[in-house]
Amino acid sequence: MRLKALQSKFLLTAAFIAIGTGNTNAQSINEVQKIANERGLSTADLLAAAKTYTPTGMKDEYVIFSSGGHSGQVFVIGVPSMRILRTIGVFTPESWQGWGYGVGNEILDEGNVSGRENRWGDTHHPALSETNGDYDGEWLFINDKSNARIAVIDLRDFETKQIIKNPLFINDHGGAFVPPNTEYIFETAQYNVPWGADHAPMSDYKDNFRGAVTMWKFDRKKGRIDKAKSFAIELPPYWQDIADAGKLASDGYFFLNSINTELATGGFGVEGEKNPPFEAGVSMNATDYLHIIDWKKAEKVFEAGKYTMIKDFPVISLKDAVSEGLLHLTPEPRSPHGVDVSPKGDFVVVSGKLDPHTTIYSVEKIKKAIANKTFSGQDEYGVPVLDFDSVMEAQVEVGLGPLHTQFGPDGYAYTSLFLDSAVARWTLGGDYGKLNPEPDWTLVQKTPVHYNIGHLGAAEGDTVDPDGKYLVAYNKWSVDRFVQTGPLMPQNFQLLDISEQGTEMPVIYDMPMGIGEPHYAQIIKADKLKSWSVYPEIGWDPTIQAVNPWAPRPKSERIERKGEHEVEIFMTSVRSHFTPEHVTVKQGDKVTWHITNTERAIDATHGFSIPVYNITLSLEAGEYAKFEFVADTPGTFPFYCTEFCSALHLEMMGYLMVEPAE
Amino acid sequence: MRLKALQSKFLLTAAFIAIGTGNTNAQSINEVQKIANERGLSTADLLAAAKTYTPTGMKDEYVIFSSGGHSGQVFVIGVPSMRILRTIGVFTPESWQGWGYGVGNEILDEGNVSGRENRWGDTHHPALSETNGDYDGEWLFINDKSNARIAVIDLRDFETKQIIKNPLFINDHGGAFVPPNTEYIFETAQYNVPWGADHAPMSDYKDNFRGAVTMWKFDRKKGRIDKAKSFAIELPPYWQDIADAGKLASDGYFFLNSINTELATGGFGVEGEKNPPFEAGVSMNATDYLHIIDWKKAEKVFEAGKYTMIKDFPVISLKDAVSEGLLHLTPEPRSPHGVDVSPKGDFVVVSGKLDPHTTIYSVEKIKKAIANKTFSGQDEYGVPVLDFDSVMEAQVEVGLGPLHTQFGPDGYAYTSLFLDSAVARWTLGGDYGKLNPEPDWTLVQKTPVHYNIGHLGAAEGDTVDPDGKYLVAYNKWSVDRFVQTGPLMPQNFQLLDISEQGTEMPVIYDMPMGIGEPHYAQIIKADKLKSWSVYPEIGWDPTIQAVNPWAPRPKSERIERKGEHEVEIFMTSVRSHFTPEHVTVKQGDKVTWHITNTERAIDATHGFSIPVYNITLSLEAGEYAKFEFVADTPGTFPFYCTEFCSALHLEMMGYLMVEPAE
Repeated sequence: MRLKALQSKFLLTAAFIAIGTGNTNAQSINEVQKIANERGLSTADLLAAAKTYTPTGMKDEYVIFSSGGHSGQVFVIGVPSMRILRTIGVFTPESWQGWGYGVGNEILDEGNVSGRENRWGDTHHPALSETNGDYDGEWLFINDKSNARIAVIDLRDFETKQIIKNPLFINDHGGAFVPPNTEYIFETAQYNVPWGADHAPMSDYKDNFRGAVTMWKFDRKKGRIDKAKSFAIELPPYWQDIADAGKLASDGYFFLNSINTELATGGFGVEGEKNPPFEAGVSMNATDYLHIIDWKKAEKVFEAGKYTMIKDFPVISLKDAVSEGLLHLTPEPRSPHGVDVSPKGDFVVVSGKLDPHTTIYSVEKIKKAIANKTFSGQDEYGVPVLDFDSVMEAQVEVGLGPLHTQFGPDGYAYTSLFLDSAVARWTLGGDYGKLNPEPDWTLVQKTPVHYNIGHLGAAEGDTVDPDGKYLVAYNKWSVDRFVQTGPLMPQNFQLLDISEQGTEMPVIYDMPMGIGEPHYAQIIKADKLKSWSVYPEIGWDPTIQAVNPWAPRPKSERIERKGEHEVEIFMTSVRSHFTPEHVTVKQGDKVTWHITNTERAIDATHGFSIPVYNITLSLEAGEYAKFEFVADTPGTFPFYCTEFCSALHLEMMGYLMVEPAE
Repeated sequence: MRLKALQSKFLLTAAFIAIGTGNTNAQSINEVQKIANERGLSTADLLAAAKTYTPTGMKDEYVIFSSGGHSGQVFVIGVPSMRILRTIGVFTPESWQGWGYGVGNEILDEGNVSGRENRWGDTHHPALSETNGDYDGEWLFINDKSNARIAVIDLRDFETKQIIKNPLFINDHGGAFVPPNTEYIFETAQYNVPWGADHAPMSDYKDNFRGAVTMWKFDRKKGRIDKAKSFAIELPPYWQDIADAGKLASDGYFFLNSINTELATGGFGVEGEKNPPFEAGVSMNATDYLHIIDWKKAEKVFEAGKYTMIKDFPVISLKDAVSEGLLHLTPEPRSPHGVDVSPKGDFVVVSGKLDPHTTIYSVEKIKKAIANKTFSGQDEYGVPVLDFDSVMEAQVEVGLGPLHTQFGPDGYAYTSLFLDSAVARWTLGGDYGKLNPEPDWTLVQKTPVHYNIGHLGAAEGDTVDPDGKYLVAYNKWSVDRFVQTGPLMPQNFQLLDISEQGTEMPVIYDMPMGIGEPHYAQIIKADKLKSWSVYPEIGWDPTIQAVNPWAPRPKSERIERKGEHEVEIFMTSVRSHFTPEHVTVKQGDKVTWHITNTERAIDATHGFSIPVYNITLSLEAGEYAKFEFVADTPGTFPFYCTEFCSALHLEMMGYLMVEPAE
């Protein structure tokens, strides 16, 4: 250390002499300037490079959990480097992880729809588990909009543990969202259908098509949704959209906005059909409805047995929801996309995408209006509508196409502007007013982004304790930003530096997302994650997060024939061999294959694959897996390790020999 | 512009005054230094940041085409920013691209193995098409090691156009490789089986198991492999490994190394089996064999009809290959992984992973030895073995576990060292000697990488005209480099700056690869790619790269019932509606659905999805697609656009109604 310090001092002195000034950094920094000049970089570029650069071996400060859209996966990304750390296989099989190719098949089957293997999803809104309204880094939930399913991911091993299909509807959008202590996962319908997606003509829309919010009970100890303790609340067949759970001042509430309170049913392009196309039909009214749901009251109604079984699932009827006072509506600017609760839970921000304002509701006023029954009327399904002027706190003109809002620690709110292709920074009022120098409820600045921003995410920006620092614009189009790689272009995640107050909010990085079409994402402080680096013990079964008694151990490897047409294989893998190396079965045998990776070293993953039979596994250190197949194709099939594990990795192989039936 | 120049001059002057020195960059660069200090970055870090930073809107200079290993895909990555630009669905279905979920199913079916749907691959070695030994940016080929298949990707739209299954073997490793004008795609077997992977006991190994190299004829005009003009050459059942085609001085040759010339068959762990495990059994001899194949001679033998049909595929027998003088062997250090031809085609570099040297063969000496029959004997299959000392040019001690070599423009070769976890720079001799100051055939420097490097890639580093500048170490383990995201860790692509001669070769970036397990990759100059940004015309069918006459056009949308149980849908998509919006069919109907995205704007992609029926498509501007299904599940199913296309994207939907059968 002493030598190093001396050397460094020597260099500084040399620099001092060389440039004849007191600026002792200049000599070294001049090298940077030289490279920058060569590459045509400005000082702003260099600042951005310095802010986003994560030197080799240094770790990112934040982690993004991003939906993958119709890739059906979740992507994990480091901030500020914007590097994709990994993909998590969820609704769509993914062969690198072996997801759906030997492991995970039972979990994927839980998500079968109408008895059919449905092997992709449209993941939209990830929700990190929360404790007291703050991310706790333990669980991640995500919805599949296309088939109305929810997946549960364990953040100890970043693997999907459960997929649950909604029995009532076939399309969800307002999910997954969780209350401050993750007692439930909320999932709400969007494109409505008759219960269970049964067939009905469109003329039945008003009477037979239904919206709903499902409250899936999360059993944190088991790490699973407990269907037996879950229920739904019937809603009008509006297109329920994004939602947010209340917290602190609004704890116990669930806010949910909607499109198509017109009950338009489309039909454009069908002969003789006179209805306007959906895009026009659903945008005719000036306002739609914000749903305000008292979920703690709903829980009590459910526990009191006041529900009907529909498709074998308990549903609180719309009538009961109204009579029990757990559902209210209030007008909101038409076709909104975002409803977002402020850090203290005291305000609800709604952005109607066809209105250049965001509309802020006061939770205090909402509570008062509910208590005093300050209704302006009721909707056509009899749901009371709170008087808009009695619950509205402020409206801020932010720009064109406002969609989604997140928050900083200093009284700023950030709203994505789809049509402006910009991020707006604006100020909250109330208790937040004194946290920054600008006046309350005012637009402060807009930063252009490239292009067509959908959602945005600020660091921990939807929790009770937002961090500020970084904001990511989840832009939908990238057009000309990257080398052209076919007509299918990546999305563009742009990193904004929001650490300075006021009008400084520059874009400092463009990150292409060419592996899916992310919608929403959450950004968590990296040190909250407590991921395992190896499985806790040899023979660990990730599907039960415990050692499996069937897991083969060294010296217990064997091939057991059970009856005439059943064979059970017990295999281990370790650098650099599988034991046993030869497996002989007969055509038609039902084969059950157990395999344990007996490694204890970090990163000592082995892959395992069998050709023809469509099997590939990823076995992390300690992991046990089981798969089954019927050996109905005879032949000689080399199996081998697919994960480059050692210098003798290519030698890690063996043969499955399927003897032809006589 | 004038104002901007004045302002900038003013700032410089202010800076000059502020620091009282002639260094006019100091004022602005000090800001960079300040940020760097805050983040704990050294000057070396800042240099690295500046070199890898690609400012918002600026494009990468190079593009990596990387295999995805058992993800079954190809990944496209920008250099120097190391951003993933996109994934290309190849052997494994990928729902973002709709690959295998409505489109691509026929192409995936071409790759069915033994009549089974095999829906993943283990992509290893991508090969960009070449013209005169240089990448031309037109086509990409890649192998599936696990099932012995080759895929063809068109770089106009970055989509897979063909998958072809090898009829002779079930496992390949030495593929895909192409000669300098891409007349063929070479694919060679690794883990050998009897022809067609038929069943045989392991005791038949020496007599009935066979290696082979398949020469797939590539029809560049059609953009497809022409199976009718393709053939194979029988080889001994050694584990043929990596290969490289000759060029310039070695044009017409194909070099292919091998493991397991011991003919070990393993069996470890099976009761009563006394054979050593594969890792020991295949490494007993001090040398294995480099195969030297005269592929132009082989082509003539094939054209002369001197072949046998095996599994309906023409095969030149081993006996004929020897008698026609198109196959020679020569000893090489045991268990090699890389064989790499120098830019002028004059040297062949082989790295035996258990020998700390690379061994360099002279093509001139090889030709002479063949002409003079300078044989040291023959192998047990009667193949002549060229005398090692007569063909060896040099051996360079590079370090432990050498695997793979690429080249720079200045007489340097770069070899990955798996056991050392390092990249070695060493000098070539011959004509290359004068291109750098160091002595010939000498190790110059080793840069540590993190960790366990497999392949490496230098910019255009395996062509006749390497660029230098950048080198990427494709490291297999990342261990502690990134935020922990479960026990399954990403690989680590590290970017090395090789622009300076001599001992300067720093690692300047760590890029996690957490979406597959890449093996080999090629790095092409970005300006060689001529990708389309939209499809050339409305109604374009990417499977035929032409307008499809069946493509629906605006105003021709319709639903046609054909007979009692068949319905044909003709649909268009445009911001923000599908036409028609209602589709009614009867349970049991066979539905054929045609859809055209009529957009002409860049990035105006629409997704299309149907729940339950497992259908999701990505329709780029102009694209036509067709899919079919039997509507056997009755119900009400919303379809919608899955790609966020416009402010009214959520409104872009419709209903498929399947009426229950009576």
